[in-house]
Amino acid sequence: MTAPPSDGESPPTGRTRLRRHPERGVYDQATVHAILDEGLVAHVGILSDQGPVVLPMAYARVASTLYLHGAAGNALLRAAEDAPVCATVTLLDGLVLARSAFHHSLNYRSVVVYGTGRRVGDEDEHRLALAAIVDHVAAGRSAEARPPSASELRSTRVLALDLAEASAKTRSGPPVDDEADATWPAWSGTIPLTLVRGTPVEA
Amino acid sequence: MTAPPSDGESPPTGRTRLRRHPERGVYDQATVHAILDEGLVAHVGILSDQGPVVLPMAYARVASTLYLHGAAGNALLRAAEDAPVCATVTLLDGLVLARSAFHHSLNYRSVVVYGTGRRVGDEDEHRLALAAIVDHVAAGRSAEARPPSASELRSTRVLALDLAEASAKTRSGPPVDDEADATWPAWSGTIPLTLVRGTPVEA
Repeated sequence: MTAPPSDGESPPTGRTRLRRHPERGVYDQATVHAILDEGLVAHVGILSDQGPVVLPMAYARVASTLYLHGAAGNALLRAAEDAPVCATVTLLDGLVLARSAFHHSLNYRSVVVYGTGRRVGDEDEHRLALAAIVDHVAAGRSAEARPPSASELRSTRVLALDLAEASAKTRSGPPVDDEADATWPAWSGTIPLTLVRGTPVEA
Repeated sequence: MTAPPSDGESPPTGRTRLRRHPERGVYDQATVHAILDEGLVAHVGILSDQGPVVLPMAYARVASTLYLHGAAGNALLRAAEDAPVCATVTLLDGLVLARSAFHHSLNYRSVVVYGTGRRVGDEDEHRLALAAIVDHVAAGRSAEARPPSASELRSTRVLALDLAEASAKTRSGPPVDDEADATWPAWSGTIPLTLVRGTPVEA
């Protein structure tokens, strides 16, 4: 795994540098890692012979690597091996209601990771990645659940993506209306959104 | 816009037919529409010359069309015109904690749309799409907010995706463990997840 630059920043590349709303771009690793750690689902894009395919997948971050997993025959993970991959994680924080339709928006924090899929073949890394994915669903859970058997390991494919080319983009705060709309007679403000964990339901 | 087949089902195509967990596949339009209407963000994938790009975007559904919008110069929307696009919406419903690490999962409802991006040039359709996107953020809002001016319309690009090739995939219910794990000493069950709207914050 790549050591982080000493200042904790990944300099933007041609792909990660934001062209639209560059003020919303965040390139420091701590922000990227925090968003990835809070999210639960990555939207993973690959190329198929018919065009792009984007599927939701569980994942986990370990240091500067993102791990994805699926069944051994998973078509998307197979297509992603040694191929360009884009994995995006978005946390929705609020609805932004401006006085003008034009300035309506969403508050969010997102991370886009560009990389080349690396199939995890080493058994130790394979087990570590699967444990991290289980712990990402519920902290500490991999120590309580029955560990994967040899045949379960064989039937699971793990793909690693290096986070070297990852960037975050965020929007927060109130709507930004034009001054001319200050007296338009519509409520304006934000409605916070939170993903809440409910009461556990025992099986 | 395409009239729905009389039975309300879009037959699965080579791309939408599920290979993995086919029992989770749902092809009826009502389910696809309900998931799209409940979601707020689509993860939109296109091809760039460096590989796939997946970005989160606000959207709205009108009949059997999905509308995406962005700034007139938005690179992703420009690349999506007359090109293959995949747009995916995922709603997260719960954490699934099995007794075995292997059977951990997430409960979710997702829709994957494959299509070819069509730029909306007609002004009436342009206005209709933008109003639908504002109303998707907050119902009835487009009637209250100041409507887009001519220059705001010019600075906004709208892309349409036909929903003819859309399918849903869902998982719900408790974990499914192997019988041999029935006595493994770990709690098992589901933890519901809900996206909750908080108290509005006036600007």
